[in-house]
Amino acid sequence: MASQKTPFDLNQYLVTRTETVNRAMDRFLPSEKTRPVTIHKAMRYSIFAGGKRMRPALLLAAAEACGGKPADALPLACAVECIHTYSLIHDDLPAMDNDDFRRGKPTSHKVFGEGIAVLAGDALLTQAFEIAAQAKGWPRYPHRELILEIARASGSLQLVGGQVADLEGENKKLSVAELRYIHERKTSALLCCSVRLGGMSANCTPAQLQALTDFGYHVGLAFQVIDDILDVTQTSEQLGKTAGKDVAVQKATYPSIVGLEKSRKIAAQLTDKAFAALKIFKGRAEALEGIAQYLLKRDK
Amino acid sequence: MASQKTPFDLNQYLVTRTETVNRAMDRFLPSEKTRPVTIHKAMRYSIFAGGKRMRPALLLAAAEACGGKPADALPLACAVECIHTYSLIHDDLPAMDNDDFRRGKPTSHKVFGEGIAVLAGDALLTQAFEIAAQAKGWPRYPHRELILEIARASGSLQLVGGQVADLEGENKKLSVAELRYIHERKTSALLCCSVRLGGMSANCTPAQLQALTDFGYHVGLAFQVIDDILDVTQTSEQLGKTAGKDVAVQKATYPSIVGLEKSRKIAAQLTDKAFAALKIFKGRAEALEGIAQYLLKRDK
Repeated sequence: MASQKTPFDLNQYLVTRTETVNRAMDRFLPSEKTRPVTIHKAMRYSIFAGGKRMRPALLLAAAEACGGKPADALPLACAVECIHTYSLIHDDLPAMDNDDFRRGKPTSHKVFGEGIAVLAGDALLTQAFEIAAQAKGWPRYPHRELILEIARASGSLQLVGGQVADLEGENKKLSVAELRYIHERKTSALLCCSVRLGGMSANCTPAQLQALTDFGYHVGLAFQVIDDILDVTQTSEQLGKTAGKDVAVQKATYPSIVGLEKSRKIAAQLTDKAFAALKIFKGRAEALEGIAQYLLKRDK
Repeated sequence: MASQKTPFDLNQYLVTRTETVNRAMDRFLPSEKTRPVTIHKAMRYSIFAGGKRMRPALLLAAAEACGGKPADALPLACAVECIHTYSLIHDDLPAMDNDDFRRGKPTSHKVFGEGIAVLAGDALLTQAFEIAAQAKGWPRYPHRELILEIARASGSLQLVGGQVADLEGENKKLSVAELRYIHERKTSALLCCSVRLGGMSANCTPAQLQALTDFGYHVGLAFQVIDDILDVTQTSEQLGKTAGKDVAVQKATYPSIVGLEKSRKIAAQLTDKAFAALKIFKGRAEALEGIAQYLLKRDK
């Protein structure tokens, strides 16, 4: 009897990957009983606040698409989640986006105070590099390259730079090009880094790395356009965070510049480009495709 | 004619090392014209605010004591200075120590606002790892080890942990043991890491690394005891930062717990232990000795 291929179950995939990442994260982070306990409580509060683990899932899926082992990808998956979480803690601070809620829970500075929230972000950013240094290196992708990949995607030219441009763009009329500059940095940079690291953990070929780069870049941009759309179309309850914030602070968004329908079309086009990049994997990238579909169709 | 050994000139040593480090730092940091310009101006404002470059000097001196080349030590020297500078920017924030002046100049958040100050600290912390990844690795000290060394000294168990314990210790009566716990983390951890990295950049022996560890630990503690002493004995003008702050916020310090004279004795004892650790270098550690003397005798 010929073996039948089981249809891909994205939900099941995300549930098991989230569990795997959470267990690994629990091992990598100091326990809540470790002195000074406040900082470890704060780090764990934000890491285990119910994030969707999209970046780790993409990283693990990219590793699988390149024939890698999940165990080799896992430290890097935890490292990017630490970077992502630190950036949210700092972005939510009163001096930045001033958000009281995130994923339906009070933000770090509301629970622990501003000083500890700044330090919890600092500690998670540092922890990311400590975890990444413990990943497996390959001759083609030694630790030097893995660390550079994370540092460049997170630094002043990318992730931090995007937040700066975002802060400075408030209450200003931005062009689509300026908005894309922000999105490339605030969102695409770390998503792209995640899938690239997944490929690197699997000792991928240069052609596979380029395909993952194209995929991550376009998924990242699509993700952010959809975030902008959801902010104007959904309620705070549906989102689990304050809705309508972009309008309230007169932040430039795709809907505010090009309208809602055009924004939806742009998101779909970006996702098409992402899918096209996956052709090289010839059917081994169904998890990556599934996650991209999920990111485009999500309603929160 | 027998060659005469030139007496060691500490001042000349520090001047030339500071110039070397400043030139390297200028190469490693994005220019002020790089987008987004605000973040690069803020990073450079604090990096070039007149810091004494003690950690880089110690790192380079440790490398020399182990027979290493300054060029191999330089990226690591710049990396630790980025870590040190980021920690000062964040410590000075209103939510932490709330300092308006540092080295006689307005602090980052006074010049750029709190949001950019947080992000400039984040960017420098990230930049530290980007620079460290570009250092030379050795089979005994590969990049994996160099990155772990920096991340552990800077993370929630050490540098960040010390700042947390310091914040939580305000307005509390601390024991000498609790105060030492804070000092080990706030000051010794990164000084110790600096001299260790210097040794590693020179492919030092395990015995040399242990000697540098002992030296760094004790110099770090001595340095912090002296900082406490200067805070109560010097004026703001002499220090170039707000004096008497520890008393104003009722922060526990060595002078407040054991008195001024006992504090001076402790600082001297710690320095003696540091010097003892340098015996193994048999006269090649005169720069390290000179800097330790300078740190003990400094009046600001």
